[in-house]
Amino acid sequence: MLTKKVALIMGSDSDYPVAKKAEAALESFGIPFVTHLMSAHRTPERVRDFALKARDAGFGVIIAAAGKAAHLGGFLAAYTTLPVIGIPIKSSAFEGLDALLATVQMPGGIPVATVAVDGAENAAILAAQILGVTDRDIAEKLQVHRQHMAETVIQKDRLLQETHT
Amino acid sequence: MLTKKVALIMGSDSDYPVAKKAEAALESFGIPFVTHLMSAHRTPERVRDFALKARDAGFGVIIAAAGKAAHLGGFLAAYTTLPVIGIPIKSSAFEGLDALLATVQMPGGIPVATVAVDGAENAAILAAQILGVTDRDIAEKLQVHRQHMAETVIQKDRLLQETHT
Amino acid sequence: MLTKKVALIMGSDSDYPVAKKAEAALESFGIPFVTHLMSAHRTPERVRDFALKARDAGFGVIIAAAGKAAHLGGFLAAYTTLPVIGIPIKSSAFEGLDALLATVQMPGGIPVATVAVDGAENAAILAAQILGVTDRDIAEKLQVHRQHMAETVIQKDRLLQETHT
Amino acid sequence: MLTKKVALIMGSDSDYPVAKKAEAALESFGIPFVTHLMSAHRTPERVRDFALKARDAGFGVIIAAAGKAAHLGGFLAAYTTLPVIGIPIKSSAFEGLDALLATVQMPGGIPVATVAVDGAENAAILAAQILGVTDRDIAEKLQVHRQHMAETVIQKDRLLQETHT
Amino acid sequence: MLTKKVALIMGSDSDYPVAKKAEAALESFGIPFVTHLMSAHRTPERVRDFALKARDAGFGVIIAAAGKAAHLGGFLAAYTTLPVIGIPIKSSAFEGLDALLATVQMPGGIPVATVAVDGAENAAILAAQILGVTDRDIAEKLQVHRQHMAETVIQKDRLLQETHT
Amino acid sequence: MLTKKVALIMGSDSDYPVAKKAEAALESFGIPFVTHLMSAHRTPERVRDFALKARDAGFGVIIAAAGKAAHLGGFLAAYTTLPVIGIPIKSSAFEGLDALLATVQMPGGIPVATVAVDGAENAAILAAQILGVTDRDIAEKLQVHRQHMAETVIQKDRLLQETHT
Amino acid sequence: MLTKKVALIMGSDSDYPVAKKAEAALESFGIPFVTHLMSAHRTPERVRDFALKARDAGFGVIIAAAGKAAHLGGFLAAYTTLPVIGIPIKSSAFEGLDALLATVQMPGGIPVATVAVDGAENAAILAAQILGVTDRDIAEKLQVHRQHMAETVIQKDRLLQETHT
Amino acid sequence: MLTKKVALIMGSDSDYPVAKKAEAALESFGIPFVTHLMSAHRTPERVRDFALKARDAGFGVIIAAAGKAAHLGGFLAAYTTLPVIGIPIKSSAFEGLDALLATVQMPGGIPVATVAVDGAENAAILAAQILGVTDRDIAEKLQVHRQHMAETVIQKDRLLQETHT
Repeated sequence: MLTKKVALIMGSDSDYPVAKKAEAALESFGIPFVTHLMSAHRTPERVRDFALKARDAGFGVIIAAAGKAAHLGGFLAAYTTLPVIGIPIKSSAFEGLDALLATVQMPGGIPVATVAVDGAENAAILAAQILGVTDRDIAEKLQVHRQHMAETVIQKDRLLQETHT
Repeated sequence: MLTKKVALIMGSDSDYPVAKKAEAALESFGIPFVTHLMSAHRTPERVRDFALKARDAGFGVIIAAAGKAAHLGGFLAAYTTLPVIGIPIKSSAFEGLDALLATVQMPGGIPVATVAVDGAENAAILAAQILGVTDRDIAEKLQVHRQHMAETVIQKDRLLQETHT
Repeated sequence: MLTKKVALIMGSDSDYPVAKKAEAALESFGIPFVTHLMSAHRTPERVRDFALKARDAGFGVIIAAAGKAAHLGGFLAAYTTLPVIGIPIKSSAFEGLDALLATVQMPGGIPVATVAVDGAENAAILAAQILGVTDRDIAEKLQVHRQHMAETVIQKDRLLQETHT
Repeated sequence: MLTKKVALIMGSDSDYPVAKKAEAALESFGIPFVTHLMSAHRTPERVRDFALKARDAGFGVIIAAAGKAAHLGGFLAAYTTLPVIGIPIKSSAFEGLDALLATVQMPGGIPVATVAVDGAENAAILAAQILGVTDRDIAEKLQVHRQHMAETVIQKDRLLQETHT
Repeated sequence: MLTKKVALIMGSDSDYPVAKKAEAALESFGIPFVTHLMSAHRTPERVRDFALKARDAGFGVIIAAAGKAAHLGGFLAAYTTLPVIGIPIKSSAFEGLDALLATVQMPGGIPVATVAVDGAENAAILAAQILGVTDRDIAEKLQVHRQHMAETVIQKDRLLQETHT
Repeated sequence: MLTKKVALIMGSDSDYPVAKKAEAALESFGIPFVTHLMSAHRTPERVRDFALKARDAGFGVIIAAAGKAAHLGGFLAAYTTLPVIGIPIKSSAFEGLDALLATVQMPGGIPVATVAVDGAENAAILAAQILGVTDRDIAEKLQVHRQHMAETVIQKDRLLQETHT
Repeated sequence: MLTKKVALIMGSDSDYPVAKKAEAALESFGIPFVTHLMSAHRTPERVRDFALKARDAGFGVIIAAAGKAAHLGGFLAAYTTLPVIGIPIKSSAFEGLDALLATVQMPGGIPVATVAVDGAENAAILAAQILGVTDRDIAEKLQVHRQHMAETVIQKDRLLQETHT
Repeated sequence: MLTKKVALIMGSDSDYPVAKKAEAALESFGIPFVTHLMSAHRTPERVRDFALKARDAGFGVIIAAAGKAAHLGGFLAAYTTLPVIGIPIKSSAFEGLDALLATVQMPGGIPVATVAVDGAENAAILAAQILGVTDRDIAEKLQVHRQHMAETVIQKDRLLQETHT
């Protein structure tokens, strides 16, 4: 079975400094992905076309990063039944609350799996977890990543103890 | 010059008790309108088709009423350059703040003219004001409506004075 | 390939009126599931044990419904690399904002896929979407469900037009 | 038919760095406009006089930019039946939420068409959309502007693809 | 020296159930007052005229009760240098936060003395305190009222102790 | 009649950069004032003593500036029937919302006249307005100040027109 | 060693329906307590006197329940170095956010141990935990209570399983 | 009787700049303490083990500092009946509101004694107050600290008076 690809879509190039943390995480899990700049409001046709063809094009998960009245995740989700992960991007006002509510408060029938404001790394990990439900290789990499995170914390705690003696 | 029509679109039939206050106001100004139930997320193609054809079909203003992660106004605005008025609908959580932010915080390039939460009557008056920029008849009706509102307040104040003597 | 099961965990029996909407949706997709009452704070050992064994026990997705300082999703996610979906439950104060932020604002490394406040139906659909990435049967059911939703909206709109003629 | 003018009113000179983005957009559409500094609270008589005469002076739309307890839009709207667009300006506290609520939550009868916090460019585009309802020339410019925005996004996406190969 | 009068202005008759608590308190202090229904947006001329003449008409304090985008206090304050007390009225959305911010966040130069949401009784007491700065009779009544409040609390506590023995 | 003094009390020396704008305004109106640093929580006895003696010491108004859980205004108001003006100070979190709610939401019986977050200048103007109810000299200075503000705005608008020709 | 007493103070008799849940919990742990109605703003002297004498009177913990601009906890804490637990009470506006921020956001030096909005039972348990640091009897009762809570959840889950078979 | 130790646990090393203010305060009271870096989500087993053994290891109070969806305090509290003090840490979004609600809004049965956002010093003072209930030495140090704080304020006020003469 071929590994499904992940699509990382962002609504504005100003979202890229955050969104590219998702790229790094996807790469670390060896998950194939594409990154696109597509705006739900400025290029709705491209968003629509992408979503309509995504499953047949071999995508398993779509990640959407958008700020303000963040419709990108919901727009994609309206045109596909693939899981769509939404990253609310913090912009100049409301500390990202506008993007969070516009992403997470989807009406019945069309969910968007929302992660924390600016949570691009977690969006990628969630995509890996979704693919890892049936992909044993990714599941193992997630387990290794989890242990690595724990060891990092434990190591930092050890250093802290040394500075306190 | 024919009067432009107004389209009143709502995202869910649960929005109708609020949205129909816009119908009453449009009727009182003698403005032709249609009302449609169309969901940005459940029937995106119908919303898209409607917006793409709206100007040629004789519409001058589109009013969109939606709650929660209210994308309807922005979705319509992405497919037309007609003015789109958004009514954020209060639903079960967040007192309508989710719908307000999802409607008003549109990114640069694609505005949605937002009125108060559940402000359906004002959406209709705003539509009339927009048409009244060049339609003298509607402009006059707006002036009459304004005077009528003032007189109602003044009359109520007069009654209040009588109860205080 | 056997269909993975879904686990629906709620933190309090007061969450059940909302949570059971997820049961109905899972049933409609023919997805096997279990429902458990387990509190992250009152029965942490049971939550921990469940999460540690969930993948081997044949679960593909865990849904966690909790209110107030809703730690249940994050707690489960700390002990498994399966995707965990969080439903923030609205309780007596803050309109569910406390549960939403406590669920969605997870720190880097441990995501919880968050849906709308009280969004139990969408949590189930998201679980189906996740399983549907590789399960063609569920993917088809999702497509049918999507069309059914659209037709319902279209049918309601048709009735609305009749009442307006 | 002469093109109607747009009036851009700001409540404080500290609003000008934001407000002047509206000037640039109005210029790009070739729409005649004036800009004024007038405070609802410090120079109420000037605001009143301006609003009372605006329609006869050839204005079609008034844009009001104000921060904090932003009354400017509502004050103008109380004295004219022209459409009034409100730009809530973010100032030192509350991230612009005070200005947003003070602008958008207008009582029944007197709407203010509210755009995003600091959304001056969108206010100008909305003004153009309003004039474009009957002004074919502006309507065409809006269509060109829309295509230009789309092409910019598509071009940026193309560059992004090149950096990813 | 004649006691100055207090003017209690409300923006909508729906504010009267709250506003009339101010009437009761003013009466209990023997302070002469008038109550008016005047809307900043529907009857701006009446609000303006009232404010312009208020000091010469013998008023010492103006109390303004209004909800939503509550401009009434600020509008009155723009036309008088008498102290204006604002009562933000809770209406159907945002728990009165819109009215609070629209009342209290006045720009530099034009203050509105804001009390709690729906705090009509306190608005009246504050008016009495203002008049009591130089009116010894009112100052004494305020002292008596203060002692009476304390005794009521002490008496209730005494009853509570009895129920706990 | 001797002019009453104003007391400006701040809860922390970190509030002084804001609070001293009140000093400047009081000086411009020729109102005698004292400034004190007193903490409701660290020096409650001094706050209590000050409030208990304030009226007899010739004070007419007390201004309290405090941040976070800003109890200073309410504490002073509990020990005097003089009008107490509260300035909520913005500190490191919540944009001053904590201080605003802790100042304005006083329970029935004990009002605090609240101005905008960091609104020290307006607190001083409000104090002047309160004294100006019976002090003709201050009332006239307020009128002059009001005209001066208007002229400043008008002059700035004139300059703006010149830059636009 | 004699068990320290707990003082439960509420700011208004309207807080009693919530506050009495703390009484029930304290009784279940066999902890001696008194309940008093005392208002920080209406009876400041009684609050002050109580706090000043509390330690010598054998109290170990003070619980303060108050709503709106809830100063009661901070006021008590200003006059004692005993631990003070604050219960923010939800009242008619802001869903208890005002009381929460006014209780928890204490300035440096004077903490109030804050529990959830309306969290009276937890306030009592926290008081028991504080006394249980050195009181072995209470510590054991807390352990039993914890096990009892777990068993209740487990028992409810068992019943749930039966209804699902 | 041996003085109980305090455990200061933080969820991320980015919390240390804030958390170490608690260390300084604990040292000033002569209270023995340990500091650990442990993440509820990355190292749940270590958090669990620490909490399970804390009482027997001689700890009297646990302080937990965490940001975002701050589960650390609640997680520790689920595994011990010692008092747990939560410090909500302000991180990049929501001004710490997410951490505050995730810490304070604990469900019935498992309290976390919450202090202000970033209130590390107060967390340490609260820990001292808890130990000071039965430890006379700490109680005396708290009294000295309280007087020292008062004197600092009084001394600063004296300097302020000198600058104003």
